[in-house]
Amino acid sequence: MISKLNIDSTAVLISKSLSDFEQEINSTFNSFSRVFLLMDANTHLHCFPEFQKTFPTNIKIEPIVIPAGEQSKSLDQAEQIWQQLFDANATKSDCLIALGGGVVSDVGGFVAALYKRGMKYFVFPTSLMAMTDAALGGKTGVDFLQIKNSIGVFYAPEKIVIATDFLNTLSEREYNNGLAEIYKHAIIYDRSLWDDLKSDVDEFEIVQKSIAVKVNVVNNDYHEKGERKILNFGHTFGHALESYALTNKIDLLHGEAIVTGMIVEAELAFDAGLLSQEDKSEIVNELSNKFGKPMLAKVDFNLMTEFLLQDKKNTHQICFSLPTEIGKCEINQFFSLEEIKKAASCYIELL
Amino acid sequence: MISKLNIDSTAVLISKSLSDFEQEINSTFNSFSRVFLLMDANTHLHCFPEFQKTFPTNIKIEPIVIPAGEQSKSLDQAEQIWQQLFDANATKSDCLIALGGGVVSDVGGFVAALYKRGMKYFVFPTSLMAMTDAALGGKTGVDFLQIKNSIGVFYAPEKIVIATDFLNTLSEREYNNGLAEIYKHAIIYDRSLWDDLKSDVDEFEIVQKSIAVKVNVVNNDYHEKGERKILNFGHTFGHALESYALTNKIDLLHGEAIVTGMIVEAELAFDAGLLSQEDKSEIVNELSNKFGKPMLAKVDFNLMTEFLLQDKKNTHQICFSLPTEIGKCEINQFFSLEEIKKAASCYIELL
Repeated sequence: MISKLNIDSTAVLISKSLSDFEQEINSTFNSFSRVFLLMDANTHLHCFPEFQKTFPTNIKIEPIVIPAGEQSKSLDQAEQIWQQLFDANATKSDCLIALGGGVVSDVGGFVAALYKRGMKYFVFPTSLMAMTDAALGGKTGVDFLQIKNSIGVFYAPEKIVIATDFLNTLSEREYNNGLAEIYKHAIIYDRSLWDDLKSDVDEFEIVQKSIAVKVNVVNNDYHEKGERKILNFGHTFGHALESYALTNKIDLLHGEAIVTGMIVEAELAFDAGLLSQEDKSEIVNELSNKFGKPMLAKVDFNLMTEFLLQDKKNTHQICFSLPTEIGKCEINQFFSLEEIKKAASCYIELL
Repeated sequence: MISKLNIDSTAVLISKSLSDFEQEINSTFNSFSRVFLLMDANTHLHCFPEFQKTFPTNIKIEPIVIPAGEQSKSLDQAEQIWQQLFDANATKSDCLIALGGGVVSDVGGFVAALYKRGMKYFVFPTSLMAMTDAALGGKTGVDFLQIKNSIGVFYAPEKIVIATDFLNTLSEREYNNGLAEIYKHAIIYDRSLWDDLKSDVDEFEIVQKSIAVKVNVVNNDYHEKGERKILNFGHTFGHALESYALTNKIDLLHGEAIVTGMIVEAELAFDAGLLSQEDKSEIVNELSNKFGKPMLAKVDFNLMTEFLLQDKKNTHQICFSLPTEIGKCEINQFFSLEEIKKAASCYIELL
């Protein structure tokens, strides 16, 4: 049973098993003589065999495998992929498929958008992060000068095909990485999803609800002029933390940074009188229980400052999207470095 | 007296003197606290003084100067500009202005499109090529692996401001570079412009007519699914010639390559029975009289082959847009390398 949503002009198809999509895949890709399949080393190992089984045998798959991990989100990596596409004489009537997590779909979309000014692009997200967040909404990009997603474009895939069985290939750490964004969706938009997360509701239902949040928010404001910014809750501080970790070669996943980001920013919302003590505590406690202590327990705040100032959502001040209660969020809340430091120091040791 | 056209959502404003736009410039840029102004060494020298005179003094101009010439259309150059923007903490509410010819507007649009997924972008074209062609229609990009415009995106500027007085700053060679595209516009779309070019009609009128051709064609088919491809007349062969020249470090301007491209492709159209002997001869004679002998009189055709096969308009065969009479053009005409070689050998010595 495939359920279907639309982001802008892109169909988002959701089911449990990849084999549920056999007919869909057949009719979608039959018009292509060959497809380029971008994977990282992990999805090549764990997801490609299943993918190959489901894919029509008459279409030539040309695999492009990149290293797993955030360091592949670079212009250098994009150039290597373009080089492979040019070497293979890929044309605009071929297509690129990204089979992987957020890194693969971010780089894949970026590469497809720019190759000869745009080749057709499909995403098969395999991580919880990619299924519920990264692959949805047309944002593509790479990191530049250690700043996350600082070079990129909006580029809509033709289709996004989500088979939740791929979640079985994830480690607990990777799974929690995506779960962080689901908690965010609940906090900013959907109190009922929050309640589901606290009880033990079926995973498939939670994934669907989380996708629905992202799809609704993006459809109301594709180019992030306003409402879409609510998705940035936890991300102003979280992105700065991630850039900090990247610069200092600390192993920190996006979701791990975002959990800390949400906790610090909930405190900020409380300090500003936007969020009640009760809701703040519920958010902080629930996140701490689920995800444990912050991975980055000690941070040099002076070094983090430059990343806070560089966040691409800034317009000369530091801008946050903050919850006003669980299930609601306000954009364009501005704070000084001092206020941020105060909130952060409740949870992190600042050096 | 400012005349106004629209490409998609972008206003194209045309007048003779930059000072005619004083009020327009004031009201457009007053909302920006600072603007980044991209120029090449030539426009910095010849056009910037005039620009500065017209620009409101209360807005801070931050100049970014790149070397003149096609070699600046590279990812390396784009990275250097991004680095400068990040160093200056440019935000999405600042804007980038390109003041220059086609190279500056191609790179400028590319840089603006990708910087933090898009900053506001304005173009002040200063060359005949940029005014009548390159700056119009949202195509941006850089050369990659010596292949022209092979990495890029569509990105619409906020406004395109055309002051034809800047044409006085051009050398004859640069002027003719742009004139080639005007001849192309006449051949593919506007017999009356062709007749104007043969008589000595006022330059401003010719520029306006040429802009109108480009604007009409682009508006009918922004993303080049069909009709817009007529603009590729002369460009399949011309681009390959340009890539060939680039690889062999031969100094060849885009327009110079396109003139040869149009002559060879007119021959191809005649060979295929699409174009009458009379119109072919008129095209070949007029272009030869106006632009002289081809700059690249000798070409190793085997080396050119790979560039013909790489042209981004190809879909596994070599695709041309060819005139059927002066003022009309057909897209999607496919030819073999042998047929191309035969047509080319009438005008170029093939090694």
